[in-house]
Amino acid sequence: MNKNSKSFLFRMEKNTLKPMDSEQLREYGHQMVDFIADYYKSIESFSVLSQVKPGYLRELLPDAAPKHPESLQDVLNDVQQKIIPGVTHWQSPDYFAYYPSNSSTAGFLGEMLSAGFNIVGFSWVTSPAATELEVIVLDWLAKILKLPNEFLSSGQGGGVIQGTASEAILVVLLAARDKVLRKIGRNSLEKLVVYASDQTHSALQKACQIAGIYPENFRVLKADSSTNYALIPYQLHEAIINDLSSGFIPFFLCATVGTTSSAAVDPLSDLGKIAKANDIWFHVDAAYAGSACICPEYRHHIDGIEEATSFGMNAHKWLLTNFDCSLLWVKDRSALIQSLSTNPEFLKNKASQENTVVDFKDWQIPLGRRFRSLKLWMVLRLYGVENLQSYIRNHIKLAEQFMQLITSDPRFEVVAPRTFSLVCFRLVPPEGDQDNGYKLNYNLLDAVNTSGKIFISHTVLSGKFILRFAVGAPLTEESHVKAAWKVLQDQATILLRE
Amino acid sequence: MNKNSKSFLFRMEKNTLKPMDSEQLREYGHQMVDFIADYYKSIESFSVLSQVKPGYLRELLPDAAPKHPESLQDVLNDVQQKIIPGVTHWQSPDYFAYYPSNSSTAGFLGEMLSAGFNIVGFSWVTSPAATELEVIVLDWLAKILKLPNEFLSSGQGGGVIQGTASEAILVVLLAARDKVLRKIGRNSLEKLVVYASDQTHSALQKACQIAGIYPENFRVLKADSSTNYALIPYQLHEAIINDLSSGFIPFFLCATVGTTSSAAVDPLSDLGKIAKANDIWFHVDAAYAGSACICPEYRHHIDGIEEATSFGMNAHKWLLTNFDCSLLWVKDRSALIQSLSTNPEFLKNKASQENTVVDFKDWQIPLGRRFRSLKLWMVLRLYGVENLQSYIRNHIKLAEQFMQLITSDPRFEVVAPRTFSLVCFRLVPPEGDQDNGYKLNYNLLDAVNTSGKIFISHTVLSGKFILRFAVGAPLTEESHVKAAWKVLQDQATILLRE
Repeated sequence: MNKNSKSFLFRMEKNTLKPMDSEQLREYGHQMVDFIADYYKSIESFSVLSQVKPGYLRELLPDAAPKHPESLQDVLNDVQQKIIPGVTHWQSPDYFAYYPSNSSTAGFLGEMLSAGFNIVGFSWVTSPAATELEVIVLDWLAKILKLPNEFLSSGQGGGVIQGTASEAILVVLLAARDKVLRKIGRNSLEKLVVYASDQTHSALQKACQIAGIYPENFRVLKADSSTNYALIPYQLHEAIINDLSSGFIPFFLCATVGTTSSAAVDPLSDLGKIAKANDIWFHVDAAYAGSACICPEYRHHIDGIEEATSFGMNAHKWLLTNFDCSLLWVKDRSALIQSLSTNPEFLKNKASQENTVVDFKDWQIPLGRRFRSLKLWMVLRLYGVENLQSYIRNHIKLAEQFMQLITSDPRFEVVAPRTFSLVCFRLVPPEGDQDNGYKLNYNLLDAVNTSGKIFISHTVLSGKFILRFAVGAPLTEESHVKAAWKVLQDQATILLRE
Repeated sequence: MNKNSKSFLFRMEKNTLKPMDSEQLREYGHQMVDFIADYYKSIESFSVLSQVKPGYLRELLPDAAPKHPESLQDVLNDVQQKIIPGVTHWQSPDYFAYYPSNSSTAGFLGEMLSAGFNIVGFSWVTSPAATELEVIVLDWLAKILKLPNEFLSSGQGGGVIQGTASEAILVVLLAARDKVLRKIGRNSLEKLVVYASDQTHSALQKACQIAGIYPENFRVLKADSSTNYALIPYQLHEAIINDLSSGFIPFFLCATVGTTSSAAVDPLSDLGKIAKANDIWFHVDAAYAGSACICPEYRHHIDGIEEATSFGMNAHKWLLTNFDCSLLWVKDRSALIQSLSTNPEFLKNKASQENTVVDFKDWQIPLGRRFRSLKLWMVLRLYGVENLQSYIRNHIKLAEQFMQLITSDPRFEVVAPRTFSLVCFRLVPPEGDQDNGYKLNYNLLDAVNTSGKIFISHTVLSGKFILRFAVGAPLTEESHVKAAWKVLQDQATILLRE
C-alpha cells in the first residue's frame, strides 16, 4: 500500500473527504510520534534561540493554500527544513531564559488525549468528566500545596484551570472590581485603586487596562535591594491611608511569590493582614515559584496564604504539564461567577438549572475550554508527588551549583539572592564604566544567545542590566549547566579583551 | 523489557526523574495513538451525551494525588472505565448539538506537533516560526474567504489566532472602547453604547461586562421571524439617532453571520454603511458559518464584509481544526496593539525594539500562546481547499436531507429557514396546547438525549421552544442522519401517545 496515495489519505467515497478515519489517524499518529521523539533525541543539535531573520518564512512558503492535498511526508519535510530553524527550543536542556515552560511525556500524552476527545467543556453537561476531573485534580494540588481548606471545592471556593496567569489575574481583578462596584455604584470606577510592587508581572497592568482601571490609580510601589525586591508592607499601608484620605477606594492587591525579574517573595502574611483590614481583594501570584512549594522545605514561601482571597500558579511552567495549564484557586467562587456568568437559552440544561454542577464557563473569559485537567492528572499519576518534588529539588540544586560557578569567577557577580532556580548575575563593569555595565552585559547577552549554544534572558534591577539564568527545562542536567557557564566565561573573555 | 517497570518509566539515574526521555516518549506516544485510534473506531458504541450523574467521578477517584508513580496502563484503564463514561462525544457521528467542534487527523497531528515543541510564542523571538506561520496561514485563509485586502498582513491590518470567538469579540471591543475613550476622555465610559440583535451570541454580553460597558447601554435590538431573525438596519439606524440625541456615544456594532440559535445572517452591507456613517467599530462574528464561506456559492453571505472593521470565524468549529483555533482579522492592527500592549523590561528584545516583527502578545488577552497555526496549516495542506469545500457541501446536503425528512412528517414543522447545516424544527403542538408545545418539545429533547443515541440541543425563537439539529461532525454520514430521524420519530410517537 502506498502511504502517500490520495485514495488512502482521504479514503474517498463518493468524493467525500473522510478526515477522521481511525486507521489513518493511527498510521499518521505513529509517524508523528516518531517525528517528535526524534526531535527530542536531536534537540541539542539545534540553535536554542532561533537565529532566523524577520520575514524568513514568507520566502519559503507559497502565497496561497493548496487546492489539492499534499502528503504528510511533504509537510514533515517542511517542518524539518523550514519550521524548525524558526523554532526557539524551549525544551532544550540549554534553555535558561525567562522561566521554563515544561513539557513531559505525561503532559504530552495528556495533550494528545485531550486533542483526541476534542470536547468543548464550557458546561458540565458538555462532558461531565472534564469538569469533575478538573475539580478533583485542583483539590489534589491544593492539598499538596497545603492551601487552606477554603480553597477546596468542598466549601465556598475551589480551583479552576485558566490558560495563563494573565487570565487568572484578570478574572480575579474583574471579580473584585464588580464586587465593590455592586456596593458603591458603577460610576465609582474612577476611584478604584490597585496595589502591587514594581516587580509585579506586567499581566497586572494589562488586566487593569482591560478592566478599565484608571492608569493613574495603579499604585506601583517601589521594591529595591533593601528587601531583596519584595514589597514593603509599610509602604502599602501608607499608600492605602493616603488614598483613603483622598477619597479613593483601595480594592485590589497583588503579591508575588517568585517575581519575574528576580524570583523575589512578597511577605504574604503582613500584606494579607493589611488587605483584610481594608477589605481589599488579595491575590497571590506564584506563577513560577508555586511549583517549588510542593516541597515541604519551600512551602514556607507561601506562609500567609490563608490571608489571600485567590492564589495562582502555573503547572505549565515548572511542573511538567505542557502549556497551557494555569491553576487558580479562589475562596469565594460566587464572586467570579457573578462577574463572568451569562445564561443564554441555547446553553440551558437540566444539570445547570438545578444548580447541582459547576459550569466553568462562568469562571473564565472564554466560553469554550479544552479538557486540560487530563494532562495535569497524568503528570501527577505517572510521576507521583515524590518524583515531582525531587524534580524541583534537582533544578534548585543545579541553580546553586551555577551560583557557585559565578562566585568563583571574580569577573562576575551575583546581584540578587537565589531563592529558587533562578540566578541573577552580571559581569562586573570596569571601574568608572559610563553606563554601569549596561552595554557590557547587553553585549554578553547578545553574544551567548547568538552563539546558539544557550538561551538566557535579562532584566533591569535598580537600574542595573542583569542577566537571568533560570534552570528548569526538563532535560537540563549538571553537564548543561557547566557547559552554559563555559559559554558565558568564554564570551566574557572575548568581550573584556575588546 | 517490562513496559510497566518503574525503572523504565522514569529512567531514574541518581534518583532524578527523567520526564522527557525521547524513547519513553516514543513508546508511550505509540500506545496513546493506538488508544485514541481505537476510541474513534468504537466511538459509535458510546452514549453520545454522557449519562452520568453529578459527582460521579468523585466516587471513583482517590482523594489525593499518589505519592508514587502509577503505570500508563493503569491510567489508560481509568480513562476507559472512569473518564469515558463522563465524556460527551463531540466527535461522534451522532452528535448534532450546539454547533460542531471538528477534530480531524490533520488537526490532531498539528496539536501533537504543537504539544511536542511546547513553545510559548508571546513574542516573535520566542519562536519566529510560530508568529510567521500564523501570519502566513491567516493570509491564506483571508484569500480563500476573499476578504478585502485591508485584512491582509501586507497593509495596516492582519489576522491572528485567538482561543475562542469570545476572546476575539472581547479584544475588538476593548480596542474600540479605548480608541473612542482616547478621544473623548476616560470618564465618558458611561456614555458608550453597543449595538447587536437579540440573536447575537452571549459572548458579546460577557465582553461588555468585562470591558465595563454599562449594561443599560447595551442595545439589544429585536430580530424576529419577519426577517428570519436577522437584524433590521432601520432599527439600528433609529437606535443610533435616539442615542445621539440623548447624548450617548454609539461606538460598537456586532453583526452575526450564522447566529447561534438559527444560523441567521445579518445584512452586513446595510449595517456596515450605518456603522461607517456613525464612526462605529463594526465587528462581524461568523464563528460557525464563516467556514461555509470558503465555498463560492456561500461566499455571498459575507458580502458587505468590506464595511467591517473586524471579522471572526472559528476554524475549530466546522473547518476540521481541533479546538481551539478562532481566527480574527482586523483592518487596523494598531488599535488592538494600543489597547493590549505592555512592554516590560524582561520581555524586551532586539527584534521587537526595532519594530520589524509582530508580537502577538499585544493582539490578545493572555501573554503566553501556543503554536496553534501548525494545526490550521496542516489542515489546509493535508486536505487542500477543494476537499474542504466538498466537506462543507456534504454537511449542507445532509442538513437539506434532514429537512426533507422533517417536512415529510406532518407531526413536525421546520421553524426557521435552513441556510447552512442547521435545521430548526419542533413537534407541532396539539391545538389549544397550553404552553404552545414547550413541554412537548422539551420532553422530546430530553427523551432523545437520554437515549444516548443522538445529542441535539435547543433554543427559543419568538417564544417557541425549538429543537436544533446541527450537522457538522467529521464522521457524520447520511446513515447517521437517517438513524437520528428515526430516533426522533420513535420518541415523538411515544410522547404523542402519552
